[in-house]
Amino acid sequence: MLNFDFYAPARILFGRDTQKEIGALLKPHAKKVLLHYGGGSIKKSGLYDTVVDSLKESGVDFVELGGVKPNPRLSLVYEGIALCKKESVDLVLAVGGGSAIDSAKAIAMGVYYDGDVWDIYEESKPVDKALPVATILTIPAAGSESSGDTVITNEEKQMKLGYGSPKLRPLLSVMNPELFFTLPKNQIANGVADMMSHVFERYFTNTTHTDLTDGLCEAILKTIIKNALLVIKNPQDYDAWAEVGFAGTVAHNGLVGMGREQDWACHGMEHELSAIYDVAHGAGLAVLTPGWMQYVYKDNISMFLQFAVNVMGVNGSYRDPEGMILEGIARLREFFAKMGLPASLAAIGIGEDQLELMAKKATWAAYGNEEYPLGGLKKLYWQDVLEIYKLVK
Amino acid sequence: MLNFDFYAPARILFGRDTQKEIGALLKPHAKKVLLHYGGGSIKKSGLYDTVVDSLKESGVDFVELGGVKPNPRLSLVYEGIALCKKESVDLVLAVGGGSAIDSAKAIAMGVYYDGDVWDIYEESKPVDKALPVATILTIPAAGSESSGDTVITNEEKQMKLGYGSPKLRPLLSVMNPELFFTLPKNQIANGVADMMSHVFERYFTNTTHTDLTDGLCEAILKTIIKNALLVIKNPQDYDAWAEVGFAGTVAHNGLVGMGREQDWACHGMEHELSAIYDVAHGAGLAVLTPGWMQYVYKDNISMFLQFAVNVMGVNGSYRDPEGMILEGIARLREFFAKMGLPASLAAIGIGEDQLELMAKKATWAAYGNEEYPLGGLKKLYWQDVLEIYKLVK
Repeated sequence: MLNFDFYAPARILFGRDTQKEIGALLKPHAKKVLLHYGGGSIKKSGLYDTVVDSLKESGVDFVELGGVKPNPRLSLVYEGIALCKKESVDLVLAVGGGSAIDSAKAIAMGVYYDGDVWDIYEESKPVDKALPVATILTIPAAGSESSGDTVITNEEKQMKLGYGSPKLRPLLSVMNPELFFTLPKNQIANGVADMMSHVFERYFTNTTHTDLTDGLCEAILKTIIKNALLVIKNPQDYDAWAEVGFAGTVAHNGLVGMGREQDWACHGMEHELSAIYDVAHGAGLAVLTPGWMQYVYKDNISMFLQFAVNVMGVNGSYRDPEGMILEGIARLREFFAKMGLPASLAAIGIGEDQLELMAKKATWAAYGNEEYPLGGLKKLYWQDVLEIYKLVK
Repeated sequence: MLNFDFYAPARILFGRDTQKEIGALLKPHAKKVLLHYGGGSIKKSGLYDTVVDSLKESGVDFVELGGVKPNPRLSLVYEGIALCKKESVDLVLAVGGGSAIDSAKAIAMGVYYDGDVWDIYEESKPVDKALPVATILTIPAAGSESSGDTVITNEEKQMKLGYGSPKLRPLLSVMNPELFFTLPKNQIANGVADMMSHVFERYFTNTTHTDLTDGLCEAILKTIIKNALLVIKNPQDYDAWAEVGFAGTVAHNGLVGMGREQDWACHGMEHELSAIYDVAHGAGLAVLTPGWMQYVYKDNISMFLQFAVNVMGVNGSYRDPEGMILEGIARLREFFAKMGLPASLAAIGIGEDQLELMAKKATWAAYGNEEYPLGGLKKLYWQDVLEIYKLVK
């Protein structure tokens, strides 16, 4: 086990009707809130009205900025920063999924940053101060409701970059599984692929003596696999949603990666897809992850054998560990297929023409700088990334 | 799954040499610290000097109060409160195990409480404000380094009472497994019994749809069982200690009990033992827990079957679930025996003369008030508690 620094202060209010408490929850922390959200879905569902009523009842003033899109855009972040400054906002409340929350975090740190907020992403600048962020989650997926991470897309530069800081951990997040009942099935599936990937990126490691976090990762993955199949069948299954939603938060609050070298190659490879093609992050991950496993498993047979047995339930001849691993990967593909997730780049509209460029961007080889290989379990240079893209084309 | 409110803000700095950073860690939070600890062990080990040097180097002023005993005493808490007020202390740093930390928390809230701090324990008063608490853990057991809980013994009244508040969650806790290398084996074993009990109290529930937290509980228990046997054999096994120590923190930071009705009968029954006899908390729990399981398992066969299979690794005839459960309980007893833990009240010096009094105190029947039964999975009245005491006499 490696040394670690664990800090996950986000308070999670979980369960039926919790969204109605948002005004009272924010009252001690804010006089004026930026209500930040996406499109019309929260207006159609009535959640917008519930939130506004709750803020008004508690005497919390607010201004609003809608229009967050999937793969949230830098241009809207700029707008939010200007609005917060002009209106002396002291807390950003994101109502939505990971995109709204990531956009809220960018705004929250941009308010105090004396320069272009994009610099923070591009140059990994430390952040000293940010407005507090609160969230009401409507799409369980990104884990952004408890993490200190944000991913923003710079439309002009066709770049999608992530950034993380303890200062960006939300103050509190409200999660009511009933708010997930109306999600379309492709969004459910994408979210599930994303949260599973957050565990995979931490689980697959060469670090040894990781019994506890191995076991926690496996418990989360098995919970998601079992319950995701229930919600995709019946999106109004409260109890199954409660498991999936809670699992998505624990998957990404940092706990299960403590003391382990982490991987994050799949996320790095996926960001290049969605930077250019604007595909859903989860769909991209579902395509890439089994390919990545196939490409790297020989570098750590025992790790992947444990995955096959403890997560995917493979029984068989331990004298043929590779056979068991390939069966584990096949079962993961089957699970993704049952969820309706895509299995190839072609299926998400990505042809072969830009694969090399994306591979080079993923490792920064495209920028003429020193190359930064992706991955922890196995270092992946641009040629490796290209091989993986081709494996799943 | 039940609605829940999860909040575990304690930052955990984990690993080799982390104790040397304490001064720098506290500097942004405190000008003057109360250094609170037990007896001579931290002086003998050199930890005291390390901490003092680190505080001095960082320019953090401090006063000190040693003398914390196991089952920490109210009288010392009073002394600490007076000292903090007199010296304008703004943070309490506990260096030690659960006793030092629990005592530090009592002092931290007593400083701002306008009255006898014992009232807070006896009347469960809400706490609005407390000094921040930081910890350097030397005995992994109580989980107090991340929890908001404190247990104090009132010597005069022969009462041991617990209290919990989000305001008592430590600001940060430092955990270096190397600091555990010199623990005597009985303290190791007691600590292990305590942390396992923190999981058991949450794990055994009648609440359904708890896949995620079931799995997390099981992962923690299996990690502890495996690695506790390694540390009891070789107390200088860093990696095994890292697993046990980290597991002890996650066992009691609240996470694995979220959304579940919890039990806490064993803790309630044990507090009466140590209030009168001053036995080690963990030893008392090791005696009581298998007896409690035997007494209550028929009320929830499926829960205890899951324990037997998923935690204790029992395989067998599912047509005889009770046989499998009893085998699971027997294996737990075997594990405790391997750890050198006691198996009967007699073995910890407790005769039969006070059993009825303790059973009545545990349920408050002794105080002439309304009786408060213990337990969530099965309600235990004083006669039930007495039966369990007799089962393990």
